[in-house]
Amino acid sequence: MRLGTLRLAVPGQAPEATVAVRVDDGHAVEIPGVADVGALLAADGWRALAAGADGRRHALADVEPHAWAPPVLRPSKIVCVGLNYRHHILEMGRELPTHPTLFAKFPEALIGPYDPIVLPARAADAVDWEGEVAVVVGATARRLDDTAAASAIAGYAVLNDVTMRDYQYRTAQWLQGKTFEATTPFGPWLTVADGPLTGELTTDVDGEKVQRTAVDDMVFGPAELVAYVSQILTLHPGDVIATGTPGGVGHARTPPRYLRPGNVLTTSVTGLGELRNDVVAEA
Amino acid sequence: MRLGTLRLAVPGQAPEATVAVRVDDGHAVEIPGVADVGALLAADGWRALAAGADGRRHALADVEPHAWAPPVLRPSKIVCVGLNYRHHILEMGRELPTHPTLFAKFPEALIGPYDPIVLPARAADAVDWEGEVAVVVGATARRLDDTAAASAIAGYAVLNDVTMRDYQYRTAQWLQGKTFEATTPFGPWLTVADGPLTGELTTDVDGEKVQRTAVDDMVFGPAELVAYVSQILTLHPGDVIATGTPGGVGHARTPPRYLRPGNVLTTSVTGLGELRNDVVAEA
Repeated sequence: MRLGTLRLAVPGQAPEATVAVRVDDGHAVEIPGVADVGALLAADGWRALAAGADGRRHALADVEPHAWAPPVLRPSKIVCVGLNYRHHILEMGRELPTHPTLFAKFPEALIGPYDPIVLPARAADAVDWEGEVAVVVGATARRLDDTAAASAIAGYAVLNDVTMRDYQYRTAQWLQGKTFEATTPFGPWLTVADGPLTGELTTDVDGEKVQRTAVDDMVFGPAELVAYVSQILTLHPGDVIATGTPGGVGHARTPPRYLRPGNVLTTSVTGLGELRNDVVAEA
Repeated sequence: MRLGTLRLAVPGQAPEATVAVRVDDGHAVEIPGVADVGALLAADGWRALAAGADGRRHALADVEPHAWAPPVLRPSKIVCVGLNYRHHILEMGRELPTHPTLFAKFPEALIGPYDPIVLPARAADAVDWEGEVAVVVGATARRLDDTAAASAIAGYAVLNDVTMRDYQYRTAQWLQGKTFEATTPFGPWLTVADGPLTGELTTDVDGEKVQRTAVDDMVFGPAELVAYVSQILTLHPGDVIATGTPGGVGHARTPPRYLRPGNVLTTSVTGLGELRNDVVAEA
Protein backbone atom coordinates (compact mmCIF):
# COMPACT_ATOMS: atom_id res chain seq x y z
CA MET A 1 0.00 0.00 0.00
CA ARG A 2 1.22 3.48 -0.89
CA LEU A 3 0.10 6.59 0.97
CA GLY A 4 0.62 10.16 -0.15
CA THR A 5 -0.51 13.70 0.52
CA LEU A 6 -2.10 15.92 -2.12
CA ARG A 7 -2.33 19.68 -2.10
CA LEU A 8 -5.86 20.72 -2.96
CA ALA A 9 -5.41 24.48 -2.92
CA VAL A 10 -3.26 26.77 -4.98
CA PRO A 11 0.39 26.23 -4.01
CA GLY A 12 1.77 29.21 -2.15
CA GLN A 13 -1.53 30.00 -0.48
CA ALA A 14 -1.49 29.51 3.25
CA PRO A 15 -2.88 27.60 4.95
CA GLU A 16 -2.65 25.06 2.21
CA ALA A 17 -5.43 22.48 2.19
CA THR A 18 -4.15 18.96 1.81
CA VAL A 19 -5.59 15.47 1.97
CA ALA A 20 -4.06 12.06 2.54
CA VAL A 21 -4.55 9.61 -0.32
CA ARG A 22 -4.07 5.92 -0.96
CA VAL A 23 -2.14 5.59 -4.18
CA ASP A 24 -3.61 2.69 -6.14
CA ASP A 25 -2.67 1.68 -9.66
CA GLY A 26 -3.85 4.54 -11.77
CA HIS A 27 -5.68 6.47 -9.06
CA ALA A 28 -5.15 8.39 -5.85
CA VAL A 29 -8.09 7.79 -3.52
CA GLU A 30 -8.73 10.40 -0.83
CA ILE A 31 -8.85 9.32 2.79
CA PRO A 32 -11.61 11.70 3.84
CA GLY A 33 -10.99 14.03 6.75
CA VAL A 34 -7.29 13.18 7.01
CA ALA A 35 -5.03 16.09 6.10
CA ASP A 36 -1.78 14.22 5.50
CA VAL A 37 -0.01 10.93 6.05
CA GLY A 38 1.25 12.25 9.40
CA ALA A 39 -2.32 12.67 10.68
CA LEU A 40 -3.20 9.25 9.26
CA LEU A 41 -0.33 7.53 11.09
CA ALA A 42 -1.41 9.15 14.36
CA ALA A 43 -4.84 7.47 14.08
CA ASP A 44 -5.54 4.11 15.67
CA GLY A 45 -5.82 1.40 13.07
CA TRP A 46 -4.35 3.55 10.31
CA ARG A 47 -3.65 0.58 8.04
CA ALA A 48 -7.30 -0.48 7.98
CA LEU A 49 -8.47 3.12 7.73
CA ALA A 50 -6.24 3.69 4.72
CA ALA A 51 -7.00 0.36 3.06
CA GLY A 52 -10.75 0.92 3.38
CA ALA A 53 -10.86 4.56 2.36
CA ASP A 54 -13.17 5.25 -0.53
CA GLY A 55 -13.11 9.03 -1.00
CA ARG A 56 -12.79 11.14 -4.10
CA ARG A 57 -10.65 9.53 -6.80
CA HIS A 58 -8.02 11.32 -8.86
CA ALA A 59 -6.59 9.71 -11.99
CA LEU A 60 -2.84 9.79 -11.45
CA ALA A 61 -2.37 11.06 -14.98
CA ASP A 62 -4.41 14.13 -14.06
CA VAL A 63 -2.57 14.99 -10.85
CA GLU A 64 -0.17 17.88 -11.35
CA PRO A 65 3.34 17.04 -10.11
CA HIS A 66 3.35 20.02 -7.75
CA ALA A 67 0.13 18.79 -6.15
CA TRP A 68 2.20 16.13 -4.37
CA ALA A 69 3.22 17.37 -0.93
CA PRO A 70 5.73 15.77 1.42
CA PRO A 71 3.75 12.73 2.62
CA VAL A 72 4.21 13.83 6.24
CA LEU A 73 3.90 17.61 6.09
CA ARG A 74 5.54 18.40 9.44
CA PRO A 75 7.18 15.43 11.17
CA SER A 76 7.63 16.20 14.87
CA LYS A 77 11.23 15.29 14.26
CA ILE A 78 13.58 14.32 11.48
CA VAL A 79 16.65 12.40 12.59
CA CYS A 80 19.35 12.05 9.96
CA VAL A 81 22.09 9.45 9.86
CA GLY A 82 25.62 9.95 8.57
CA LEU A 83 28.18 7.40 7.38
CA ASN A 84 25.84 4.47 7.04
CA TYR A 85 26.79 2.63 3.83
CA ARG A 86 29.26 -0.17 4.47
CA HIS A 87 30.84 -0.36 1.03
CA HIS A 88 31.44 3.38 0.87
CA ILE A 89 32.98 3.54 4.37
CA LEU A 90 35.33 0.64 3.62
CA GLU A 91 36.37 2.03 0.23
CA MET A 92 37.36 5.26 1.98
CA GLY A 93 39.62 3.18 4.22
CA ARG A 94 37.61 3.89 7.35
CA GLU A 95 36.47 1.44 9.98
CA LEU A 96 32.80 0.64 10.31
CA PRO A 97 31.25 2.74 13.06
CA THR A 98 30.02 1.12 16.27
CA HIS A 99 27.28 3.73 16.76
CA PRO A 100 25.19 5.63 14.26
CA THR A 101 26.08 9.26 13.64
CA LEU A 102 22.89 11.25 14.21
CA PHE A 103 22.04 14.84 13.39
CA ALA A 104 18.82 16.76 12.91
CA LYS A 105 16.88 18.45 10.18
CA PHE A 106 13.92 20.72 10.96
CA PRO A 107 10.63 20.20 9.11
CA GLU A 108 10.85 23.60 7.41
CA ALA A 109 13.44 21.97 5.16
CA LEU A 110 10.95 19.61 3.50
CA ILE A 111 9.49 20.10 0.03
CA GLY A 112 7.31 17.86 -2.10
CA PRO A 113 8.70 15.20 -4.40
CA TYR A 114 8.44 17.32 -7.55
CA ASP A 115 8.89 20.80 -6.09
CA PRO A 116 11.80 22.92 -7.32
CA ILE A 117 14.91 23.17 -5.18
CA VAL A 118 15.51 26.90 -4.95
CA LEU A 119 19.19 27.60 -4.28
CA PRO A 120 19.19 30.12 -1.41
CA ALA A 121 20.74 33.40 -2.56
CA ARG A 122 23.35 33.48 0.23
CA ALA A 123 24.09 29.77 0.16
CA ALA A 124 23.93 28.79 -3.50
CA ASP A 125 27.55 27.94 -4.19
CA ALA A 126 28.06 24.52 -2.65
CA VAL A 127 24.70 22.77 -2.72
CA ASP A 128 25.12 19.00 -2.92
CA TRP A 129 22.92 15.93 -3.27
CA GLU A 130 22.55 13.07 -0.79
CA GLY A 131 20.04 10.49 -1.97
CA GLU A 132 18.56 8.52 0.94
CA VAL A 133 15.88 6.15 2.09
CA ALA A 134 13.54 7.74 4.66
CA VAL A 135 12.04 5.54 7.34
CA VAL A 136 8.65 6.79 8.54
CA VAL A 137 7.57 5.79 12.03
CA GLY A 138 4.04 4.42 12.42
CA ALA A 139 3.66 4.03 16.18
CA THR A 140 4.86 5.55 19.43
CA ALA A 141 8.31 4.05 19.89
CA ARG A 142 10.25 4.16 23.15
CA ARG A 143 13.06 1.84 24.17
CA LEU A 144 12.24 -0.83 21.65
CA ASP A 145 14.37 -3.80 20.71
CA ASP A 146 15.05 -4.43 17.02
CA THR A 147 12.02 -6.71 16.60
CA ALA A 148 9.58 -4.27 18.17
CA ALA A 149 11.24 -1.45 16.27
CA ALA A 150 10.63 -3.22 12.97
CA SER A 151 6.92 -3.31 13.84
CA ALA A 152 6.94 0.40 14.63
CA ILE A 153 8.02 1.28 11.08
CA ALA A 154 5.10 2.43 8.93
CA GLY A 155 7.11 2.31 5.75
CA TYR A 156 9.65 3.96 3.51
CA ALA A 157 9.97 6.88 1.17
CA VAL A 158 12.71 8.60 -0.81
CA LEU A 159 14.45 11.71 0.49
CA ASN A 160 17.32 13.80 -0.77
CA ASP A 161 19.23 15.34 2.12
CA VAL A 162 20.30 18.30 -0.02
CA THR A 163 23.19 19.92 1.81
CA MET A 164 24.83 23.32 1.77
CA ARG A 165 28.44 22.11 2.16
CA ASP A 166 29.79 25.59 2.96
CA TYR A 167 27.40 25.93 5.89
CA GLN A 168 27.82 22.29 6.90
CA TYR A 169 31.53 22.81 7.39
CA ARG A 170 31.49 26.34 8.84
CA THR A 171 31.66 24.63 12.22
CA ALA A 172 32.02 21.07 13.48
CA GLN A 173 28.28 20.57 13.72
CA TRP A 174 26.47 19.88 10.47
CA LEU A 175 22.98 21.15 11.33
CA GLN A 176 23.19 24.53 9.61
CA GLY A 177 24.10 22.98 6.27
CA LYS A 178 21.32 20.43 6.54
CA THR A 179 18.22 22.40 7.36
CA PHE A 180 17.87 25.23 4.86
CA GLU A 181 14.24 26.13 4.31
CA ALA A 182 12.46 24.24 1.54
CA THR A 183 15.42 22.34 0.11
CA THR A 184 14.84 18.66 1.05
CA PRO A 185 12.59 16.74 -1.34
CA PHE A 186 10.66 13.90 0.30
CA GLY A 187 8.20 11.41 -1.14
CA PRO A 188 6.73 10.74 -3.58
CA TRP A 189 4.66 8.72 -1.13
CA LEU A 190 5.04 6.36 1.79
CA THR A 191 5.27 2.72 0.75
CA VAL A 192 3.98 0.67 3.66
CA ALA A 193 6.59 -1.79 4.92
CA ASP A 194 5.86 -5.42 4.17
CA GLY A 195 9.26 -6.99 4.62
CA PRO A 196 12.95 -6.14 4.62
CA LEU A 197 14.08 -3.15 2.63
CA THR A 198 15.81 -4.21 -0.58
CA GLY A 199 16.55 -2.77 -3.98
CA GLU A 200 18.73 0.03 -5.22
CA LEU A 201 19.03 3.72 -4.45
CA THR A 202 20.14 5.95 -7.31
CA THR A 203 20.68 9.67 -7.69
CA ASP A 204 20.92 11.31 -11.11
CA VAL A 205 21.87 14.83 -12.11
CA ASP A 206 20.60 15.71 -15.59
CA GLY A 207 20.24 12.01 -16.26
CA GLU A 208 23.81 11.15 -15.28
CA LYS A 209 23.97 8.59 -12.50
CA VAL A 210 25.97 10.02 -9.59
CA GLN A 211 24.98 7.68 -6.74
CA ARG A 212 24.04 4.03 -6.84
CA THR A 213 23.90 1.55 -4.00
CA ALA A 214 22.05 -1.48 -2.72
CA VAL A 215 19.97 -0.23 0.20
CA ASP A 216 20.63 -3.39 2.21
CA ASP A 217 24.28 -2.30 2.47
CA MET A 218 23.45 -0.05 5.45
CA VAL A 219 25.60 -0.49 8.55
CA PHE A 220 22.58 0.27 10.73
CA GLY A 221 19.35 -0.89 9.11
CA PRO A 222 15.95 0.72 9.57
CA ALA A 223 14.89 -1.33 12.60
CA GLU A 224 18.25 -0.88 14.32
CA LEU A 225 18.02 2.87 13.80
CA VAL A 226 14.50 3.08 15.20
CA ALA A 227 15.57 0.94 18.17
CA TYR A 228 18.68 3.06 18.78
CA VAL A 229 16.90 6.41 18.61
CA SER A 230 14.09 5.06 20.80
CA GLN A 231 16.62 4.50 23.62
CA ILE A 232 17.27 8.23 23.60
CA LEU A 233 13.79 9.66 23.19
CA THR A 234 10.29 8.82 22.09
CA LEU A 235 9.57 8.54 18.39
CA HIS A 236 6.06 9.51 17.34
CA PRO A 237 3.94 8.48 14.37
CA GLY A 238 5.10 10.43 11.33
CA ASP A 239 8.63 10.97 12.62
CA VAL A 240 11.26 10.45 9.95
CA ILE A 241 14.69 8.86 10.06
CA ALA A 242 16.80 9.67 7.00
CA THR A 243 19.09 6.67 6.81
CA GLY A 244 22.20 8.19 5.27
CA THR A 245 23.70 8.51 1.82
CA PRO A 246 26.17 6.31 -0.06
CA GLY A 247 29.24 7.46 -1.98
CA GLY A 248 29.03 9.69 -5.00
CA VAL A 249 28.25 13.09 -3.53
CA GLY A 250 29.50 16.08 -5.48
CA HIS A 251 31.66 17.50 -2.69
CA ALA A 252 33.90 14.42 -2.73
CA ARG A 253 34.74 14.80 -6.43
CA THR A 254 37.86 16.40 -7.82
CA PRO A 255 37.02 19.11 -8.61
CA PRO A 256 33.86 19.27 -6.48
CA ARG A 257 30.59 19.38 -8.33
CA TYR A 258 27.53 21.15 -6.99
CA LEU A 259 23.96 21.71 -8.06
CA ARG A 260 23.45 24.62 -10.45
CA PRO A 261 20.34 26.35 -11.78
CA GLY A 262 18.91 24.32 -14.62
CA ASN A 263 19.96 20.96 -13.23
CA VAL A 264 17.36 18.27 -12.70
CA LEU A 265 17.96 16.13 -9.62
CA THR A 266 16.38 12.69 -9.67
CA THR A 267 16.43 10.37 -6.67
CA SER A 268 14.87 6.94 -6.74
CA VAL A 269 14.69 3.72 -4.78
CA THR A 270 13.45 0.44 -6.23
CA GLY A 271 9.82 0.02 -5.25
CA LEU A 272 9.56 3.36 -3.47
CA GLY A 273 9.30 5.70 -6.42
CA GLU A 274 11.22 8.70 -7.64
CA LEU A 275 11.76 12.32 -6.69
CA ARG A 276 12.34 14.71 -9.57
CA ASN A 277 13.34 18.27 -8.71
CA ASP A 278 14.32 21.18 -10.90
CA VAL A 279 17.16 23.21 -9.46
CA VAL A 280 16.49 26.92 -9.81
CA ALA A 281 18.13 30.17 -8.78
CA GLU A 282 16.39 32.29 -6.20
CA ALA A 283 14.44 35.12 -7.82
CA MET B 1 6.43 41.03 32.45
CA ARG B 2 6.97 37.36 33.25
CA LEU B 3 4.99 34.59 31.57
CA GLY B 4 4.84 30.97 32.68
CA THR B 5 2.89 27.78 32.19
CA LEU B 6 1.16 25.93 35.02
CA ARG B 7 0.11 22.31 35.06
CA LEU B 8 -3.44 22.06 36.32
CA ALA B 9 -3.85 18.29 36.30
CA VAL B 10 -2.04 15.56 38.15
CA PRO B 11 1.49 15.27 36.77
CA GLY B 12 1.97 12.10 34.81
CA GLN B 13 -1.57 12.08 33.52
CA ALA B 14 -1.82 12.61 29.82
CA PRO B 15 -2.95 14.79 28.25
CA GLU B 16 -1.87 17.18 30.91
CA ALA B 17 -3.99 20.30 31.19
CA THR B 18 -1.94 23.46 31.39
CA VAL B 19 -2.59 27.18 31.35
CA ALA B 20 -0.43 30.17 30.57
CA VAL B 21 -0.04 32.64 33.43
CA ARG B 22 1.31 36.13 33.95
CA VAL B 23 3.62 36.00 36.93
CA ASP B 24 3.04 39.13 39.00
CA ASP B 25 4.59 39.87 42.36
CA GLY B 26 3.05 37.31 44.65
CA HIS B 27 0.55 35.85 42.18
CA ALA B 28 0.28 33.90 38.97
CA VAL B 29 -2.71 35.15 36.99
CA GLU B 30 -4.22 32.79 34.44
CA ILE B 31 -4.49 33.90 30.81
CA PRO B 32 -7.82 32.20 30.13
CA GLY B 33 -8.05 29.82 27.21
CA VAL B 34 -4.31 29.83 26.51
CA ALA B 35 -2.63 26.49 27.18
CA ASP B 36 0.98 27.60 27.39
CA VAL B 37 3.33 30.43 26.58
CA GLY B 38 3.88 28.90 23.15
CA ALA B 39 0.19 29.30 22.29
CA LEU B 40 0.26 32.81 23.74
CA LEU B 41 3.19 33.88 21.57
CA ALA B 42 1.42 32.57 18.48
CA ALA B 43 -1.51 34.95 19.12
CA ASP B 44 -1.63 38.41 17.58
CA GLY B 45 -1.02 41.08 20.16
CA TRP B 46 0.27 38.63 22.76
CA ARG B 47 1.85 41.36 24.90
CA ALA B 48 -1.45 43.19 25.36
CA LEU B 49 -3.34 39.93 25.80
CA ALA B 50 -0.97 38.85 28.55
CA ALA B 51 -0.79 42.24 30.22
CA GLY B 52 -4.57 42.52 30.34
CA ALA B 53 -5.36 38.98 31.43
CA ASP B 54 -7.43 38.78 34.57
CA GLY B 55 -8.12 35.08 35.07
CA ARG B 56 -7.93 32.90 38.15
CA ARG B 57 -5.18 33.99 40.56
CA HIS B 58 -2.78 31.65 42.31
CA ALA B 59 -0.70 32.86 45.24
CA LEU B 60 2.86 31.96 44.28
CA ALA B 61 3.45 30.58 47.74
CA ASP B 62 0.68 28.04 47.11
CA VAL B 63 1.90 26.84 43.71
CA GLU B 64 3.66 23.47 44.00
CA PRO B 65 7.09 23.55 42.33
CA HIS B 66 6.18 20.67 40.04
CA ALA B 67 3.16 22.59 38.80
CA TRP B 68 5.54 24.75 36.76
CA ALA B 69 5.86 23.35 33.26
CA PRO B 70 8.37 24.38 30.60
CA PRO B 71 6.98 27.80 29.60
CA VAL B 72 6.77 26.68 25.97
CA LEU B 73 5.68 23.05 26.19
CA ARG B 74 6.71 21.97 22.70
CA PRO B 75 8.73 24.52 20.74
CA SER B 76 8.57 23.72 17.05
CA LYS B 77 12.33 23.82 17.21
CA ILE B 78 15.15 24.21 19.68
CA VAL B 79 18.41 25.42 18.19
CA CYS B 80 21.41 25.13 20.51
CA VAL B 81 24.65 27.07 20.25
CA GLY B 82 28.10 25.79 21.16
CA LEU B 83 31.28 27.71 21.99
CA ASN B 84 29.69 31.09 22.56
CA TYR B 85 31.39 32.63 25.62
CA ARG B 86 34.31 34.82 24.67
CA HIS B 87 36.29 34.62 27.89
CA HIS B 88 36.06 30.84 28.02
CA ILE B 89 37.11 30.41 24.38
CA LEU B 90 40.11 32.70 24.82
CA GLU B 91 41.23 31.07 28.07
CA MET B 92 41.28 27.71 26.27
CA GLY B 93 43.65 29.26 23.74
CA ARG B 94 41.19 29.06 20.87
CA GLU B 95 40.31 31.72 18.39
CA LEU B 96 36.92 33.33 18.46
CA PRO B 97 34.63 31.66 15.94
CA THR B 98 33.44 33.53 12.88
CA HIS B 99 30.16 31.60 12.74
CA PRO B 100 27.98 30.17 15.48
CA THR B 101 28.13 26.43 16.04
CA LEU B 102 24.53 25.19 15.86
CA PHE B 103 23.01 21.87 16.82
CA ALA B 104 19.52 20.69 17.69
CA LYS B 105 17.59 19.43 20.65
CA PHE B 106 14.14 17.89 20.24
CA PRO B 107 11.28 19.11 22.46
CA GLU B 108 10.94 15.71 24.17
CA ALA B 109 14.06 16.70 26.09
CA LEU B 110 12.35 19.52 27.99
CA ILE B 111 11.23 19.33 31.62
CA GLY B 112 9.85 21.96 33.95
CA PRO B 113 12.03 24.24 36.05
CA TYR B 114 11.70 22.18 39.23
CA ASP B 115 11.20 18.69 37.78
CA PRO B 116 13.70 15.99 38.68
CA ILE B 117 16.42 15.08 36.20
CA VAL B 118 16.15 11.31 35.94
CA LEU B 119 19.48 9.84 34.87
CA PRO B 120 18.60 7.41 32.05
CA ALA B 121 19.51 3.86 33.06
CA ARG B 122 21.70 3.24 30.02
CA ALA B 123 23.24 6.70 29.94
CA ALA B 124 23.72 7.63 33.57
CA ASP B 125 27.49 7.68 33.86
CA ALA B 126 28.56 10.92 32.21
CA VAL B 127 25.71 13.36 32.64
CA ASP B 128 26.95 16.93 32.75
CA TRP B 129 25.54 20.41 33.29
CA GLU B 130 25.51 23.31 30.84
CA GLY B 131 23.80 26.37 32.26
CA GLU B 132 22.45 28.65 29.51
CA VAL B 133 20.25 31.57 28.63
CA ALA B 134 17.34 30.55 26.38
CA VAL B 135 16.05 33.06 23.85
CA VAL B 136 12.36 32.60 23.08
CA VAL B 137 11.12 33.85 19.73
CA GLY B 138 7.96 35.97 19.72
CA ALA B 139 7.25 36.46 16.02
CA THR B 140 7.70 34.77 12.68
CA ALA B 141 11.32 35.48 11.81
CA ARG B 142 12.81 35.01 8.35
CA ARG B 143 15.93 36.67 6.97
CA LEU B 144 16.00 39.41 9.55
CA ASP B 145 18.82 41.83 10.20
CA ASP B 146 20.04 42.25 13.78
CA THR B 147 17.67 45.12 14.50
CA ALA B 148 14.58 43.31 13.27
CA ALA B 149 15.79 40.15 15.00
CA ALA B 150 15.95 41.98 18.33
CA SER B 151 12.29 42.91 17.88
CA ALA B 152 11.40 39.27 17.14
CA ILE B 153 12.67 38.15 20.55
CA ALA B 154 9.83 37.63 23.04
CA GLY B 155 12.17 37.28 25.97
CA TYR B 156 14.53 35.08 27.91
CA ALA B 157 14.46 32.14 30.26
CA VAL B 158 16.97 29.82 31.93
CA LEU B 159 17.83 26.43 30.47
CA ASN B 160 20.29 23.75 31.43
CA ASP B 161 21.48 21.86 28.35
CA VAL B 162 22.11 18.71 30.39
CA THR B 163 24.35 16.52 28.25
CA MET B 164 25.21 12.84 28.16
CA ARG B 165 28.91 13.23 27.38
CA ASP B 166 29.37 9.55 26.45
CA TYR B 167 26.63 9.78 23.81
CA GLN B 168 27.73 13.26 22.73
CA TYR B 169 31.16 11.94 21.81
CA ARG B 170 30.18 8.53 20.42
CA THR B 171 30.34 10.20 17.02
CA ALA B 172 31.34 13.60 15.68
CA GLN B 173 27.77 14.91 15.85
CA TRP B 174 26.54 15.94 19.29
CA LEU B 175 22.79 15.48 18.84
CA GLN B 176 22.44 12.12 20.57
CA GLY B 177 24.04 13.38 23.77
CA LYS B 178 21.88 16.49 23.77
CA THR B 179 18.35 15.24 23.36
CA PHE B 180 17.67 12.53 25.92
CA GLU B 181 14.03 12.44 26.90
CA ALA B 182 13.03 14.65 29.82
CA THR B 183 16.47 15.85 30.87
CA THR B 184 16.62 19.57 29.95
CA PRO B 185 15.14 21.91 32.58
CA PHE B 186 13.70 25.12 31.12
CA GLY B 187 12.03 28.08 32.83
CA PRO B 188 11.02 29.01 35.38
CA TRP B 189 9.18 31.48 33.16
CA LEU B 190 9.74 33.73 30.18
CA THR B 191 10.87 37.22 31.14
CA VAL B 192 9.73 39.53 28.38
CA ALA B 193 12.65 41.38 26.80
CA ASP B 194 12.82 45.09 27.59
CA GLY B 195 16.42 45.87 26.74
CA PRO B 196 19.81 44.25 26.30
CA LEU B 197 20.48 41.05 28.20
CA THR B 198 22.75 41.67 31.17
CA GLY B 199 23.55 40.05 34.50
CA GLU B 200 25.18 36.82 35.51
CA LEU B 201 24.58 33.16 34.75
CA THR B 202 25.49 30.71 37.51
CA THR B 203 25.24 26.96 37.86
CA ASP B 204 25.51 25.25 41.24
CA VAL B 205 25.76 21.60 42.18
CA ASP B 206 24.73 20.99 45.78
CA GLY B 207 25.29 24.67 46.46
CA GLU B 208 28.81 24.74 45.04
CA LYS B 209 29.20 27.24 42.25
CA VAL B 210 30.49 25.43 39.14
CA GLN B 211 29.73 27.96 36.40
CA ARG B 212 29.63 31.73 36.55
CA THR B 213 29.72 34.22 33.72
CA ALA B 214 28.46 37.59 32.61
CA VAL B 215 25.82 36.87 29.97
CA ASP B 216 26.93 39.83 27.86
CA ASP B 217 30.19 37.96 27.19
CA MET B 218 28.55 36.00 24.36
CA VAL B 219 30.37 35.99 21.02
CA PHE B 220 27.01 35.93 19.21
CA GLY B 221 24.35 37.74 21.17
CA PRO B 222 20.63 36.92 21.13
CA ALA B 223 19.71 39.20 18.23
CA GLU B 224 22.68 38.05 16.14
CA LEU B 225 21.69 34.42 16.71
CA VAL B 226 18.08 35.01 15.74
CA ALA B 227 19.24 36.90 12.65
CA TYR B 228 21.72 34.15 11.72
CA VAL B 229 19.27 31.28 12.12
CA SER B 230 16.60 33.23 10.26
CA GLN B 231 18.85 33.27 7.17
CA ILE B 232 18.67 29.48 7.16
CA LEU B 233 15.02 28.85 7.97
CA THR B 234 11.93 30.42 9.46
CA LEU B 235 11.73 30.80 13.21
CA HIS B 236 8.25 30.61 14.67
CA PRO B 237 6.75 32.05 17.85
CA GLY B 238 7.80 29.87 20.76
CA ASP B 239 10.94 28.57 19.09
CA VAL B 240 13.93 28.47 21.41
CA ILE B 241 17.59 29.27 20.89
CA ALA B 242 19.79 27.99 23.69
CA THR B 243 22.70 30.41 23.59
CA GLY B 244 25.56 28.22 24.79
CA THR B 245 27.32 27.54 28.05
CA PRO B 246 30.43 29.12 29.59
CA GLY B 247 33.36 27.30 31.17
CA GLY B 248 33.01 25.15 34.23
CA VAL B 249 31.35 22.01 32.90
CA GLY B 250 32.13 18.78 34.73
CA HIS B 251 33.59 16.96 31.74
CA ALA B 252 36.45 19.48 31.48
CA ARG B 253 37.61 18.87 35.05
CA THR B 254 40.43 16.59 36.10
CA PRO B 255 39.10 14.13 37.01
CA PRO B 256 35.77 14.72 35.28
CA ARG B 257 32.78 15.30 37.51
CA TYR B 258 29.28 14.26 36.53
CA LEU B 259 25.82 14.49 38.02
CA ARG B 260 24.96 11.74 40.50
CA PRO B 261 21.71 10.73 42.18
CA GLY B 262 21.11 12.97 45.16
CA ASN B 263 22.71 16.04 43.59
CA VAL B 264 20.72 19.24 43.34
CA LEU B 265 21.41 21.24 40.18
CA THR B 266 20.64 24.94 40.36
CA THR B 267 20.86 27.23 37.34
CA SER B 268 20.11 30.91 37.54
CA VAL B 269 20.41 34.11 35.58
CA THR B 270 20.10 37.56 37.11
CA GLY B 271 16.58 38.79 36.57
CA LEU B 272 15.38 35.61 34.86
CA GLY B 273 14.94 33.34 37.87
CA GLU B 274 16.28 29.98 38.89
CA LEU B 275 15.91 26.33 37.91
CA ARG B 276 16.27 23.84 40.74
CA ASN B 277 16.37 20.17 39.84
CA ASP B 278 16.92 17.08 41.93
CA VAL B 279 19.07 14.49 40.19
CA VAL B 280 17.64 11.01 40.66
CA ALA B 281 18.40 7.50 39.50
CA GLU B 282 15.95 5.85 37.17
CA ALA B 283 13.63 3.48 39.03
